[in-house]
Amino acid sequence: MSSLAGLRREPSVFARTFVLFCTLEGVSVAIKSRSAGSAETTKGAETRAAILDRAVDLASAEGLEGLTIGRLAAELEMSKSGLFAHFGSKQELQLATVDGAARRFRGAVIDPTADAPDGAPRLRAIADAYLAHLDAGAYSGGCFWASTSAEYDDRPGPVRDAIAGALDAWLAELERQARIAGAVQPERLAFELYAVVMGANSRYRLSGDRKVFEYARDAIERLLDEVPG
Amino acid sequence: MSSLAGLRREPSVFARTFVLFCTLEGVSVAIKSRSAGSAETTKGAETRAAILDRAVDLASAEGLEGLTIGRLAAELEMSKSGLFAHFGSKQELQLATVDGAARRFRGAVIDPTADAPDGAPRLRAIADAYLAHLDAGAYSGGCFWASTSAEYDDRPGPVRDAIAGALDAWLAELERQARIAGAVQPERLAFELYAVVMGANSRYRLSGDRKVFEYARDAIERLLDEVPG
Repeated sequence: MSSLAGLRREPSVFARTFVLFCTLEGVSVAIKSRSAGSAETTKGAETRAAILDRAVDLASAEGLEGLTIGRLAAELEMSKSGLFAHFGSKQELQLATVDGAARRFRGAVIDPTADAPDGAPRLRAIADAYLAHLDAGAYSGGCFWASTSAEYDDRPGPVRDAIAGALDAWLAELERQARIAGAVQPERLAFELYAVVMGANSRYRLSGDRKVFEYARDAIERLLDEVPG
Repeated sequence: MSSLAGLRREPSVFARTFVLFCTLEGVSVAIKSRSAGSAETTKGAETRAAILDRAVDLASAEGLEGLTIGRLAAELEMSKSGLFAHFGSKQELQLATVDGAARRFRGAVIDPTADAPDGAPRLRAIADAYLAHLDAGAYSGGCFWASTSAEYDDRPGPVRDAIAGALDAWLAELERQARIAGAVQPERLAFELYAVVMGANSRYRLSGDRKVFEYARDAIERLLDEVPG
């Protein structure tokens, strides 16, 4: 059983913990420290991470609602019972996939920008990293968060809570950096930065035109030009 | 058989025609003029419009992929065979629903702003109407276009083409107005306006916080302050 099972079962705890991960600690570090102890546990955690990596791609492309244990087993050419050993139910798999997407996001966007000074330089670095992440096709099905937030906004329950919690944490971190940068309305600036990068994802996914990334970078520059630093 | 069958079967024609509808003619006017001729045809068109209205709401909330004839028949308490008389297949129903959403969008956003002078006043009126449309809960499941474009970006085929065509037409109209307003980069301005309103929809749907509409209006004001008029 995974050491993250408790987090998955308690979405509100998951959401709060994700804020912590997002702003203070790396999810991967937390997982490694919890699952250390035996070679077997490490191997199990690696298998689980590989499964979730594929699950994040599948959910980004086909939706999280269609991500059943049967569908994922077929994709991975694994037995359903093998997958059940990792995830006891469809909902547990969905919540673990949201967690996996958060880890990928952290690895691609948060970790590489950790050295940028807080405030405007950090916001610029985060936005650049996120746009590069999309432009490089990091999620084969487009941004996981854009796809799943549009899919789950009308589906109350733990999966929606986990997605909303992760996005709230992401907006809160942007707002915190905007406040450090001296923005007059940090929450408004965070919203605008979020809208620009999400808009770029949405337009790129449908039009295939990479020009939108350039427009998004210009828009972000103008938004950050307004803050002291 | 509907007079729009030809359009639905040929997505590229549909896309081009939608551009025309969006910029020159009303979809509803076009439909009325084609289906006029007998009271029976008018009644059929009304029933069809009422069915599609419910289909747009269902698709906004649950996705367009889950919109089967069986699912819609259950929702409307109609027989499946009754629905088959209007729509011969799931795909035909999906394409007609995209068409229905375009009509609703036109009725709520394009028609009421037709009297605003072209350029910045028109862009301001369109953006205000769209935000009011979302804020009023015009789509019970959130913006149809945000939901379905995230759902279909990875599903090649006629439905994706119809959604992409409608959004391209919408962006083209924003760009045309931005050019009239004297924007230096009309396509960039159109993208930013689009991103702001889509971002407001996305944040509102997950957080329930209407403050994002105020932020979006502020952002649009600043964007339009940059153009001559």
